Amino acid sequence: MSGERPGEDALIARYFAPLAGEGADGLRDDAASLTPRPGHDLVLTADALVAGIHYFPEDPPASIARKALGVNLSDLAAKGAQPRAYLLQLGLPDDWTEAWLAGFSAGLAEAAAAFGCALLGGDTVRSPGAAFIGVTALGEVPAGRMVRRQAARIGDRVCVSGTIGDAALGLALRLRPAAAWAAGLDADERGHLLDRYLHPRPRLPLAPLLRRYASAAMDVSDGLAGDLAKMMGGGEGRRAEIAVPSVPLSAAARAAIAGDAALLDTALTGGDDYEILCTVPPEATEAFRAEAAAAGVPVAVIGEVVAGEGSPRFTTAEGASRSFAAGSFSHFR
Amino acid sequence: MSGERPGEDALIARYFAPLAGEGADGLRDDAASLTPRPGHDLVLTADALVAGIHYFPEDPPASIARKALGVNLSDLAAKGAQPRAYLLQLGLPDDWTEAWLAGFSAGLAEAAAAFGCALLGGDTVRSPGAAFIGVTALGEVPAGRMVRRQAARIGDRVCVSGTIGDAALGLALRLRPAAAWAAGLDADERGHLLDRYLHPRPRLPLAPLLRRYASAAMDVSDGLAGDLAKMMGGGEGRRAEIAVPSVPLSAAARAAIAGDAALLDTALTGGDDYEILCTVPPEATEAFRAEAAAAGVPVAVIGEVVAGEGSPRFTTAEGASRSFAAGSFSHFR
Repeated sequence: MSGERPGEDALIARYFAPLAGEGADGLRDDAASLTPRPGHDLVLTADALVAGIHYFPEDPPASIARKALGVNLSDLAAKGAQPRAYLLQLGLPDDWTEAWLAGFSAGLAEAAAAFGCALLGGDTVRSPGAAFIGVTALGEVPAGRMVRRQAARIGDRVCVSGTIGDAALGLALRLRPAAAWAAGLDADERGHLLDRYLHPRPRLPLAPLLRRYASAAMDVSDGLAGDLAKMMGGGEGRRAEIAVPSVPLSAAARAAIAGDAALLDTALTGGDDYEILCTVPPEATEAFRAEAAAAGVPVAVIGEVVAGEGSPRFTTAEGASRSFAAGSFSHFR
Repeated sequence: MSGERPGEDALIARYFAPLAGEGADGLRDDAASLTPRPGHDLVLTADALVAGIHYFPEDPPASIARKALGVNLSDLAAKGAQPRAYLLQLGLPDDWTEAWLAGFSAGLAEAAAAFGCALLGGDTVRSPGAAFIGVTALGEVPAGRMVRRQAARIGDRVCVSGTIGDAALGLALRLRPAAAWAAGLDADERGHLLDRYLHPRPRLPLAPLLRRYASAAMDVSDGLAGDLAKMMGGGEGRRAEIAVPSVPLSAAARAAIAGDAALLDTALTGGDDYEILCTVPPEATEAFRAEAAAAGVPVAVIGEVVAGEGSPRFTTAEGASRSFAAGSFSHFR
């Protein structure tokens, strides 16, 4: 026992109870209650972040909190769901500090307020190795309207939101700040890539549009190429044809790739984009893009679902075609 | 990348997809959908286990799985909820093996079938330090009927299910198998205590009875004394008076305490009982006990809620009274 740091109950009362939502009874109970609005289903997802694997432990705790919640809400957005609540399982290493926890809970509070979801419960435990942050997020969709991952139809257009590859390039920059290609970036470009890695933005404004327009959707968390392969899976005899010049890249990503052409692969296969990848019937594509733009989210058409089997094929402006081995990016291994 | 062990997707398909329930789409999506039955609320709880803190890593993986699910379902039982589904966040250390994972998923399958809940989703990640197992469990109660923790009324009787202290004594036996008191136990008694630590039994048959009879309930996970103090908290001017001779002890626990009187404190303050602690109005106590017995769960009346403040008071057969400092047991510190 330590006389200097609060125990679990005191810690919960101090840092997490202020985040509690309706049904959580100020986190004074062992469970919370939740009821979806009439005519709605709950949508549930659970992603865990581990220090040193999914984030740099030295990053600001508020940023880590925002990422932990953001990657889960990104899954909800892709399913067409509006966030409602979350549960948190926090594993703290033996050297945790109250300052870290204060920053973490402040970041969580800010993100939860921005994204419209409240803390319902969870658990705080010691983790003698690395810290871990397990979030279970709950959202709502009108009954039966969750957007599925493997429901694309041949002929549908493949769309992505925002820009692809920034986070993977930001991570590359974190790992090798003195790389030759990095010298060609200005401060704004470096800042953009680093920020995209650190602060995923769940594309919640797209959720209602995905329900209306998308035949299938998922978020891009493990890299465009690998996630597209997952999306086309399920034995339906479909494959994605992607036009590489249509894949939206930020100015910073273009500058990085200009410095090292091999970074195009990093952009197309690297993780942590947290953009929306979806398929939309051709006749609905323009309406979807226009409404997404009106909601503040740029959407690009990058290819098409065709009959066939195998990995998504990426074709360059010069007409060269290639594909990437499945699982080219994985946090896991 | 390793060529010898499956990546995350293969691992999920092999070990976890067979456990997936309705709404989980075979774990092929990033999220699952769930709708409570009409007229019901969902009840949610999330408890994480960390290797070396909450369980012995060398224990059979099926037992660890059963414990991870069981401690969460114990919370649902205490809230009067019927289990429906769970999500799993699994952090695997670098030396994980397929044999461990096969045993773990088999234990999970068996426990989930026994307890009537299915896997809805989750995440498998690398955890470079200790393994962790985060479960989020979902249950159902008729609308508005979740049993609260801090709603006891003065005059209510304090009840517990089963026997108290076995798991804490089992843990003591694990940690010091050659302790003098352990020599006085026969093989059955040792086996009983060790099994109670390893295999918590969520008291699900009590859930509907708690909704009907209990003014407040929680499960005993952090020790009777400490959990009772939490239950009486909330500034309502109530306190618990407990008659120590009424606290139900197994034959094995009595044998241990006969060998070392100090182990009574271990039994009253140690964690991992996963029994139900509840308060019941005096006029309903006998009906509650009779129905619980009919459902296969012995329930004992151990004391009363009285006006006052402060820690629960434990009075021995000799009339000596004592209390235990709050937070006398915590996995956390």
